[in-house]
Amino acid sequence: MGAQAPHVLAAMKGLVDPALRGYVDGLHPKMREISRFHFGWDDGAGSGKAVRPALAVLGARAVGASGDEPAVVDAACAVEFIHNFSLLHDDIMDKDRTRRHRPTAWTVYGTDQALLAGCALHTLAFELLARHGAAAALDALARSVQVLIAGQSDDLYLADRQDVTLDQCLEMEAGKTASLLSASASLGAIAWYGDALGQDARAKTDLLAEYGHHLGMAFQMVDDLLGIWGEQDRTGKPVAADLRARKRSAPVVAALASGTREGERLGALLAAPGELSEEDVALAAKLVEESGGRAWARERADVHTSEALARLDRLAPDAAAFGDLTEVTRFLLSREW
Amino acid sequence: MGAQAPHVLAAMKGLVDPALRGYVDGLHPKMREISRFHFGWDDGAGSGKAVRPALAVLGARAVGASGDEPAVVDAACAVEFIHNFSLLHDDIMDKDRTRRHRPTAWTVYGTDQALLAGCALHTLAFELLARHGAAAALDALARSVQVLIAGQSDDLYLADRQDVTLDQCLEMEAGKTASLLSASASLGAIAWYGDALGQDARAKTDLLAEYGHHLGMAFQMVDDLLGIWGEQDRTGKPVAADLRARKRSAPVVAALASGTREGERLGALLAAPGELSEEDVALAAKLVEESGGRAWARERADVHTSEALARLDRLAPDAAAFGDLTEVTRFLLSREW
Repeated sequence: MGAQAPHVLAAMKGLVDPALRGYVDGLHPKMREISRFHFGWDDGAGSGKAVRPALAVLGARAVGASGDEPAVVDAACAVEFIHNFSLLHDDIMDKDRTRRHRPTAWTVYGTDQALLAGCALHTLAFELLARHGAAAALDALARSVQVLIAGQSDDLYLADRQDVTLDQCLEMEAGKTASLLSASASLGAIAWYGDALGQDARAKTDLLAEYGHHLGMAFQMVDDLLGIWGEQDRTGKPVAADLRARKRSAPVVAALASGTREGERLGALLAAPGELSEEDVALAAKLVEESGGRAWARERADVHTSEALARLDRLAPDAAAFGDLTEVTRFLLSREW
Repeated sequence: MGAQAPHVLAAMKGLVDPALRGYVDGLHPKMREISRFHFGWDDGAGSGKAVRPALAVLGARAVGASGDEPAVVDAACAVEFIHNFSLLHDDIMDKDRTRRHRPTAWTVYGTDQALLAGCALHTLAFELLARHGAAAALDALARSVQVLIAGQSDDLYLADRQDVTLDQCLEMEAGKTASLLSASASLGAIAWYGDALGQDARAKTDLLAEYGHHLGMAFQMVDDLLGIWGEQDRTGKPVAADLRARKRSAPVVAALASGTREGERLGALLAAPGELSEEDVALAAKLVEESGGRAWARERADVHTSEALARLDRLAPDAAAFGDLTEVTRFLLSREW
């Protein structure tokens, strides 16, 4: 499933990359240097899969754009810049020293300059949309960024707490992941419609936004499962990294809220002081599974995947982009890269 | 001079404050709490003089607006949010623990949450302008924010260096202070014109932007002078605080670049390791003066003040706002508050 997706993503990246690089080249020299380093453009590391700009272009194609219109490409650049603004800042807050097997920007340029580079990309995103006078696109992106910021704030707040509810956890994950994917999927189409964004067009861009939301929720659930049961060579993280860090990810919170004896034992284990031993970590994973947390998360991932695909089906069953979006969706949720 | 300015500023603040508070109330609870604290709304400390929104409203009035149009008020809010975004972040970077005699937000809420609150205000500014579809206003504000960020980046970079040129210093100060004042003075008018921003209107908003630039450069020069010779009870800072911190402000850099024997002595004094004694600080101030740095800065302040007032004169000698803007300009540059 999703075998064509790498080709689709590569093609979208080829379309958007020159514009991304051109815009970064227009920044202040230090902001440019840090951004280029962060994107991995100077050492051949590349800039990841660029999922968000691909969604922006494919979403625009699904409603009739050819995808290479300046308004669409700039919307794609805008969501990529917002994503990387959040990565630059999150790496500082989370004190993460590596990303994609490379040193994070703040470890090389210091936290202050890396922070400013994030703000420069944040500003650049709005600058690009403003050029097209795309008020609806600006509004959609700004709202999404507020939810993204709120999600990060909640994440920091909840990280220190034992009593996280499942609703709090899901809202935080919706903010951190689904919000920008929702904006990404719809923004290219919104920008392409421009002043022609009437009621019918809005119904379509709403479907794209809902698609992106469900894709994001499913994606996050898969991420949470991999954070406990993923293989190191596929995820780039140590086995059960999330449990070791006592992270309140959705399967863990579901287990704690399950009302089962195993959920209670998990709570006691994670609340105990000191580092978790290898046995503790293995036991914690077992308890998440036995209390139903793993099955719950898998079911949520399946439900959101179905909901995402259903939106595509309602939107554009005949469009060429329908096949591409479906491929990309299955690929992202199978995580076989 | 500028005796009416406090009344003008208070009237402008009365016009814009309810909108500012309303928009902050719409933020995520934690971002709202931090922003309200930062603005001083919860402890009666007030939110400062709100110079930037006043300039935005007065600028709009100078070209024919009444000033209470939603597009003008929202532009005024936008520049105030950008200003406070930069204050929240700069306080973190500069490790400043107090502002306006109150603890800075990061000392109360931690650097991460304060950082996010700054980003929330940054986003809010663009959100407000997007509501009016004000592409030209969005573009002007985004460009100004890029220059503001560049100025802060240069400031951090130059702080560690001995070999700062006068051009570098002035460009940095233009970025940190003049850029947003320039945008503030013109943004209300740009937003008010909206789609009617033709060639004649653009000539007027350009004059407002130039006025704001010169106001900002003069303001910064006065600030630099006060940083060396200001009285503590007026500036809220210890006497000669900038010299004590070895800050390369414009009068200092002008002194170092003067080619005089006193400039050389100043360079040696500031390059010496260890803390500066009271005698060192007094000597440094004397050397800045004797090498011509003080006179140079005063002359630059005068030139920029004249240039600022000349722009107002060319723009709107008959408008009621002309008198208000002139009063506010003289008041800000006399610094008698």
